[in-house]
Amino acid sequence: MSLAKARTMPGVMELLPLDQIAFQNMLETIRRNFERFGFLPIETPAIEFTDVLLTKSGGETERQVYFVQSTGSLKKGEEPSLALRFDLTVPLARYVAEHEHSLSFPFRRYQMQRVYRGESAQEGRYREFYQCDIDVIGKDQLSVRYDAELPAAIYAIFRELNVGPFTLQLNNRKILRGFFERLGIADGEAQTLVLREVDKIDKRGAAAVRETLTNAPFSLPIEQADALMHFVAQRSDSHASALAMLDALGSGNSTLDTGIAEVREVLRLLKALGVPEAFYVLNFSIARGLDYYTGSVFETILTEHPDIGSVCSGGRYENLASHYTKSKLPGVGVSIGATRLFYQLRKAGLIGTAKSTVQAMVAMMDDADLPLYLELANQLRAAQINTEVQLEPKKLGKQFQYADRAGIRFVLMLGVDEKAKGVVAVKDMLRGEQFEVARAELTQSLRVEIEQSEAMPKGL
Amino acid sequence: MSLAKARTMPGVMELLPLDQIAFQNMLETIRRNFERFGFLPIETPAIEFTDVLLTKSGGETERQVYFVQSTGSLKKGEEPSLALRFDLTVPLARYVAEHEHSLSFPFRRYQMQRVYRGESAQEGRYREFYQCDIDVIGKDQLSVRYDAELPAAIYAIFRELNVGPFTLQLNNRKILRGFFERLGIADGEAQTLVLREVDKIDKRGAAAVRETLTNAPFSLPIEQADALMHFVAQRSDSHASALAMLDALGSGNSTLDTGIAEVREVLRLLKALGVPEAFYVLNFSIARGLDYYTGSVFETILTEHPDIGSVCSGGRYENLASHYTKSKLPGVGVSIGATRLFYQLRKAGLIGTAKSTVQAMVAMMDDADLPLYLELANQLRAAQINTEVQLEPKKLGKQFQYADRAGIRFVLMLGVDEKAKGVVAVKDMLRGEQFEVARAELTQSLRVEIEQSEAMPKGL
Repeated sequence: MSLAKARTMPGVMELLPLDQIAFQNMLETIRRNFERFGFLPIETPAIEFTDVLLTKSGGETERQVYFVQSTGSLKKGEEPSLALRFDLTVPLARYVAEHEHSLSFPFRRYQMQRVYRGESAQEGRYREFYQCDIDVIGKDQLSVRYDAELPAAIYAIFRELNVGPFTLQLNNRKILRGFFERLGIADGEAQTLVLREVDKIDKRGAAAVRETLTNAPFSLPIEQADALMHFVAQRSDSHASALAMLDALGSGNSTLDTGIAEVREVLRLLKALGVPEAFYVLNFSIARGLDYYTGSVFETILTEHPDIGSVCSGGRYENLASHYTKSKLPGVGVSIGATRLFYQLRKAGLIGTAKSTVQAMVAMMDDADLPLYLELANQLRAAQINTEVQLEPKKLGKQFQYADRAGIRFVLMLGVDEKAKGVVAVKDMLRGEQFEVARAELTQSLRVEIEQSEAMPKGL
Repeated sequence: MSLAKARTMPGVMELLPLDQIAFQNMLETIRRNFERFGFLPIETPAIEFTDVLLTKSGGETERQVYFVQSTGSLKKGEEPSLALRFDLTVPLARYVAEHEHSLSFPFRRYQMQRVYRGESAQEGRYREFYQCDIDVIGKDQLSVRYDAELPAAIYAIFRELNVGPFTLQLNNRKILRGFFERLGIADGEAQTLVLREVDKIDKRGAAAVRETLTNAPFSLPIEQADALMHFVAQRSDSHASALAMLDALGSGNSTLDTGIAEVREVLRLLKALGVPEAFYVLNFSIARGLDYYTGSVFETILTEHPDIGSVCSGGRYENLASHYTKSKLPGVGVSIGATRLFYQLRKAGLIGTAKSTVQAMVAMMDDADLPLYLELANQLRAAQINTEVQLEPKKLGKQFQYADRAGIRFVLMLGVDEKAKGVVAVKDMLRGEQFEVARAELTQSLRVEIEQSEAMPKGL
C-alpha cells in the first residue's frame, strides 16, 4: 500500500503536547478573567448557512470564506449553502437575534472558538485560529460605561499573561468625525474615507498619509491636512494628560462634544476600576478599519514589541443584528486573536514550553509489585495529583529519561528498601533532589510542593 | 432591507448560557480526569487534506464527509482538496505519523474537539459534536496493561459526572475469534462477518441473529449457532464470576488462549486500580462494529438508561497509522461523544441547568456612588469572585429580577445606611436570606459560602 504524506494544510497551528499545554494555560487565563468580569460563555456551530453568514455585500471577508458541502450536495453539483464562520461577531449577531427572548439584557457574553479564513498562507497569518471575544449587547440602548469595563478586563488578562509592559490605546470615532466636521469635512462618506487613511498611519507612515489627503479625491487644503495630522499625532502619557487633550479640543459640534463626553466617562471609570494610568493611552490616531464602529475604539500594544501590532482590538457599534431582527441591539466588544498572539509571544520569547500536566510518575521497580504501584497512583490521583504509572519493566535510567523528556516533575520509587521502611523515594526532577517520605505523608508533601510551584506564573 | 432568518443548520447543539455552563462543567470533569490519569492534550485542525483524511476506501464515513473549499477554489470549479474531520482517530494517526520523532512512546494523548458528519438530521444525531478521546500509542508494541488503565479513567469520569449506576462492559475480540475458530469458523473473513452479526444482538434481538446465522451465507449448523448464542449471552456479575467465565471457556487455540490471558490481566489491574467490581462486567456479546479493533473492546452502559446505548466505547487496535508511516504503532483508545451524552443526560433528567459562572452582582443604589461599586467589584475580583456590576440606575426590584433570572447568587448593596455603618448588605438569592457583613470581611465571608457550595456537585 502506498503511503499518504502525513501533513496539515498551511496556515494552521498544531502543537506538541507541552506547547499545547502552554497554549491552554493562555486560553485558561483569558477565560478565567472573562468570567471574573461577569461574562457568560456561549458556543456556536462552526458551520453557518451562507445566507446567514454572508449578509454583508461582498467585500474582503466574503472572498476569504470557506464553503462547506456534504458529499451528497457536492455530487448534485449544488451551490454551497453552508460555510465556516470567519469571525465570532456574525455568529453572535445571529445568536442574539435567534435567542433574543430567552436572553437577559445587557447580555454579557464571552466566546472562545476557532474561526476560518481562506487566506493565502504566510508567516503569522492563519487560516484557522482562535478568537476570544467579549461583548456586551444592550436592548435599544447601552450605556457608554460598558466601554470602560471591557478594557479593564483586557488589562487584567494581559497583566496576568506576563507579557511585559503594554498599553490599552483608546479613542472614539465621534471625536474623529466631529473633528473632521469642524475641519470642514462634513459628509459622512468623506469622513469614512479619511478615517480609513488615518487608520493606515502605522503602516504607511504619517508623511504618506498626509500626501494622500492633500491629493485627489481628498484634495484637503494644506492647512487642513496639517491640522488633521497634528491632531492624530496626539498621545496622552497620564490620566491628567488624557483629560488635558480632551480639554484642548474645545467645543465644536454635537458629534465632537458627545465623543469628548464619552471618552471622559471611559477614563473616569477605568480609574475607578483600578487600571493604573501607565496602562492606558488616549491616542487620536486609533480608528480601526471596520466600518461598523461608531464610538469607542480600542487597541492593545505590547510596549517592547510594537511590531506585533495590536494584540486585542474592538469598539462600540450601533446595531449588532440589523440583518436578522428589527430590534435595536447596540453593543461594545473586543477580540483577542489567541493563535496569532501565542505565536508572536513565543517568537518574542515571552512564552515558553509549559510544565507537563502530568505531575508525578510511579516508576516500575519490580513487575510483581505492579498492584502496589497502581494503588499508589490511586492514592495520588485521589489527592488531585496527575499521575502516570510505568506499566512495563524497563531500566530505571530509561524511566528517568522518559520523565525528564516528558517534563514530569516527580518520579516516585517504591523498591525493596522503601517497602521495608514504609516510605516512598521521591526524585524531584525540577530541583534535582531525591528524598524519602513516609507513605502516609506522601500526598500531603507533594501537594505542598505543587501548590508552591503553581503560585508561580504558568507556561513560562 | 430584507431580514435573513436567524437560524442554525439542523443537527447542531447550541445552548443558552446557563446550559452552556453545565456543558462546560461536564467537559471540565472529563478533562480533569484525563489529566489525572496522565494523558497529555493535543488539538488538531478541523480541516484536513482529503488525501490524508479519506485513506480508507469509501464506505459509510466517506459518504458523510463535509468537503471544504475556499471561494477561489470554488470559482475555479476544482475538486475539493480539503474536508472536515469526522472523528479524532484519523487526525491522531496523522499527528503521530507526522510528529513521530518528537513524541515519547507510549504516547498518552487526550483530545476534546468537535467533529463533523454530513448525516441526515434526526433527533439525537449530530452533524457537529464534541468527541473526548484518550488513546495510548506504543512504538512496535504496547502492553495489554494499558487496556485496563483506560476503563479505570472512564470509571473515574462517570462516577464524578453523577449519572447514577453504570457498568464498563468488557470483552476481547481474540476470545470471540478464538471461540468461533473452535466452533469451526476458521476463516478470518467469515469470523468478521459473524462478529458483525453478534454486534447487532442488542438492536435485532438474539432470535433474529440466530436465524441469520443458521441461514445462507453463514449456514451454521443448529448446534453451532446455539453454542454461539449461548456463549455470547454470558455476563459476569462479580470479579469472581468474570474469572469463572474465563475458566469455563477452557483451552482451545492460541487466539482463544491469548484472549483469555489478556482479559485476565485487564481484570487483575482494574481491581488494583480500585475500580469496584460492581462497575465492570465481562460481556461476551460486546464486539464493536469497527473492523480495526483486534483485542480488548469496551462499552459503557448507564444501568437505569440502557436505551441510551453505550456512552463511551473503544478498544485495542494493531496499527494506528499504517496509511502514513511504516512504523508499527499499536494502540488502545476510548471515546466519549460528549454532545450526544449531554443531550441524553439532560433528557433523562440526570443533568440540569447550571449555576451561573457569575457569583456576585454589585447593585446600583445611587449613580453618584458608581466609583464605590467598581472599587467593591475590584476587591471581589481580586479575591477570585466572579462579579458583575450594575452600571446604570434601575429600580432595585428590577436589579433583583435580573440577578434571579441570570442565576447570580449574591447581590451586594452599598446604600446610604451601609456606607454609614461600614458594611455591605448581601442578599443570598440561593438561600433567600439577607445579611450584613463588615466591608473588611466581605470577600472572606463570600469565599467561604462559595467554597461550601462548590463542594457540591456541579451542573446539577
